[in-house]
Amino acid sequence: MTPLPPTPATREACAELDAADPIAAFRDEFVLPEGVIYLDGNSLGALPRAVPGRVADLVEREWGQGLVRSWNDAGWWDKPRTLGARLAPLVGAAPHEVVVGDGTSANLFKALVAALRLNPGRRTVLGEPGNFPTDLYVTQGVTDLLGAGQRLADPDEPGRIAEALAAGDVAVVLLSHVDYRTGALRDMAGLTKAAHDHGALVVWDVCHSVGALPVDLAGCGADFAVGCTYKYLNGGPGGPAFTYVAERHHASARQPIAGWHGHARPFDFAGEYVPAAGADRFLSGSQPLVAAAALEASLELWSRVDLRQVRAKSLVLTDLFRSVAESAGLAVATPRAAERRGSHVALRHPGGYAIVRALIERGVIGDFRAPDVLRFGFAPLYLRHVDVFDAAHALAEVVESGEWRDPRFSERAHVT
Amino acid sequence: MTPLPPTPATREACAELDAADPIAAFRDEFVLPEGVIYLDGNSLGALPRAVPGRVADLVEREWGQGLVRSWNDAGWWDKPRTLGARLAPLVGAAPHEVVVGDGTSANLFKALVAALRLNPGRRTVLGEPGNFPTDLYVTQGVTDLLGAGQRLADPDEPGRIAEALAAGDVAVVLLSHVDYRTGALRDMAGLTKAAHDHGALVVWDVCHSVGALPVDLAGCGADFAVGCTYKYLNGGPGGPAFTYVAERHHASARQPIAGWHGHARPFDFAGEYVPAAGADRFLSGSQPLVAAAALEASLELWSRVDLRQVRAKSLVLTDLFRSVAESAGLAVATPRAAERRGSHVALRHPGGYAIVRALIERGVIGDFRAPDVLRFGFAPLYLRHVDVFDAAHALAEVVESGEWRDPRFSERAHVT
Repeated sequence: MTPLPPTPATREACAELDAADPIAAFRDEFVLPEGVIYLDGNSLGALPRAVPGRVADLVEREWGQGLVRSWNDAGWWDKPRTLGARLAPLVGAAPHEVVVGDGTSANLFKALVAALRLNPGRRTVLGEPGNFPTDLYVTQGVTDLLGAGQRLADPDEPGRIAEALAAGDVAVVLLSHVDYRTGALRDMAGLTKAAHDHGALVVWDVCHSVGALPVDLAGCGADFAVGCTYKYLNGGPGGPAFTYVAERHHASARQPIAGWHGHARPFDFAGEYVPAAGADRFLSGSQPLVAAAALEASLELWSRVDLRQVRAKSLVLTDLFRSVAESAGLAVATPRAAERRGSHVALRHPGGYAIVRALIERGVIGDFRAPDVLRFGFAPLYLRHVDVFDAAHALAEVVESGEWRDPRFSERAHVT
Repeated sequence: MTPLPPTPATREACAELDAADPIAAFRDEFVLPEGVIYLDGNSLGALPRAVPGRVADLVEREWGQGLVRSWNDAGWWDKPRTLGARLAPLVGAAPHEVVVGDGTSANLFKALVAALRLNPGRRTVLGEPGNFPTDLYVTQGVTDLLGAGQRLADPDEPGRIAEALAAGDVAVVLLSHVDYRTGALRDMAGLTKAAHDHGALVVWDVCHSVGALPVDLAGCGADFAVGCTYKYLNGGPGGPAFTYVAERHHASARQPIAGWHGHARPFDFAGEYVPAAGADRFLSGSQPLVAAAALEASLELWSRVDLRQVRAKSLVLTDLFRSVAESAGLAVATPRAAERRGSHVALRHPGGYAIVRALIERGVIGDFRAPDVLRFGFAPLYLRHVDVFDAAHALAEVVESGEWRDPRFSERAHVT
């Protein structure tokens, strides 16, 4: 990795970086509300300008005028595959290794069950204690259902995963590529190899890395992966998720939600389930096409993006934010080394909730994760260096002035 | 049931019925393409005029301007519950017994597993041989996974279900309220009681009855039900499905796709899964809100509909179509008695595929289900009696003239 450029120390230096930014023009392709600096694109990505038109076209022309004919004429039937093929390069996969559909939780469920079945002599799922709750809950759901067990080990503590694998009973490892709280980035290649060396398969959750940095599922030898499209990929709130199935598992992987979209010959309407070839067998039923239209427009934009440029800018933005936060005396939970972090910065503070609320009132949107984590996400396609400079200094002011202690900022409501 | 009015024999008689139709005005609330008579609302419902505006509002204001704040400010987090409550009266359920989310296949999977767990001494799922393939495939997926078994019995042959139940090993019965091919309507109350009398639970698939006729899940004692929103409910292609969980099972039912939206306290981000109270525990992950917005607008329309009026008109429309089809010598697969049929009419003809294609070319859209079924669905909110008269006579002409024998109508493409 080339060394990082020095962190800009002044707003002028930030403006110079913006002027030279090779991906600066993408900002114009997004809708960004007046007076807001949006540091929550790691939770819900901003709206691409092309989306409303594409969604309206699907609703008014394909649905309204085409009606049921659009299943053929507008390519609706193949959407899980065509969107999967469009998404594939963003995760280092071949086009036929990715399908789009269902939500992350359901896809995790399918991938975990399929992986357990591919490793029938073993009954343990190795997870991480700090994973996103759905990953832990779905694992509990799967292990309860199948009489399997769960073990937890922290991938950010050196040696813990290897130690857990050494017991020799792990069927599947489920890890997040980037930790949803701390922003820690895991060594996908190394951990995958360690799992394989111990006879385990790996399911990667790439929700917090896809669109934030180059992801190389095939190059790392991943077996399965799931991810959402509504964070860095700007696919819209709750937009359809995706599943990666390594080609070597296409003939043998069997997922349990055996619906007709995953059938080898769905239009035979046969009584017997015969799984389709390839990743298609991970499909179940019809997908919400109005939502898929939003993702389609977003992925068109992403097809023009060079993820190496995104990554380079992300590292500068996160460093910039971090350095100001540290100067203001805030504890940083995100690893410092470039190769060990994703595209968000996590701070810890007992007043985290109120600080996030006070910042939102100033137009700087981040989020809070219990018990004490402030998260700030950096989406390089629509954030300028000057935005991050301003946001970081707003944060420093809120903390240093004690502004956040106003009781109204402590009143609880969901922050997602 | 009041006796049906006589079938109108002329186009003028149909026009008179339209003039007196108490639900005629709803037609103006739908977009209907020029030159088309749409008899496929049982596959994909027509577009309500209110949908494009509501979808655009969600995309441009709630997502574009509100961004992540809309999870709170626009009620996104509660959408599965608020939409469920809005849908509940259409299926005879209490507001807290229905949640909207995921697809029909995933919801079937959850309901079947939950029902099997509530009946732990038994391992057989009783299904029907002619059910929609996904129902059969999902059952196969569940029984393969759990080492349970499947038995099939035809609910339209008197005594078959009772016979199958008498073996005393049936844990769960999965039936469609209306058969997707023949349009046969099943006796939900009687079959549910028979199942309960033999110690079995019942999962009803109401995909082909919801919005077509009054459905009374609670009154019939149903345990679980699943259904889609994109047919008679006009929720949009592949729109979110729903799950009904009878209140008496709220404390004990456990579904396996244990995601964070089904957690009792999701914003604690706790490591341990604790299911939410009520039907909420059937939720898994985030739902595609752009698609949910379409459904929301559609359900607003449906909140003003009297399903008894829908049903009364549906019976006249289907009778009218049937009588013309019979006069043209076509075999009718749909039961004749009003209490034994839903809102579509199925015909059987070896040239069914080509006949459907020839009719589509004339602007009459129905569909085909292998091997030989022509389906015509009647959505009383946007179909006039004169439309059905014209469509039926177009069908008669296509068949009697031999027009359908033109080889171009036999070239195969998907018909969904």
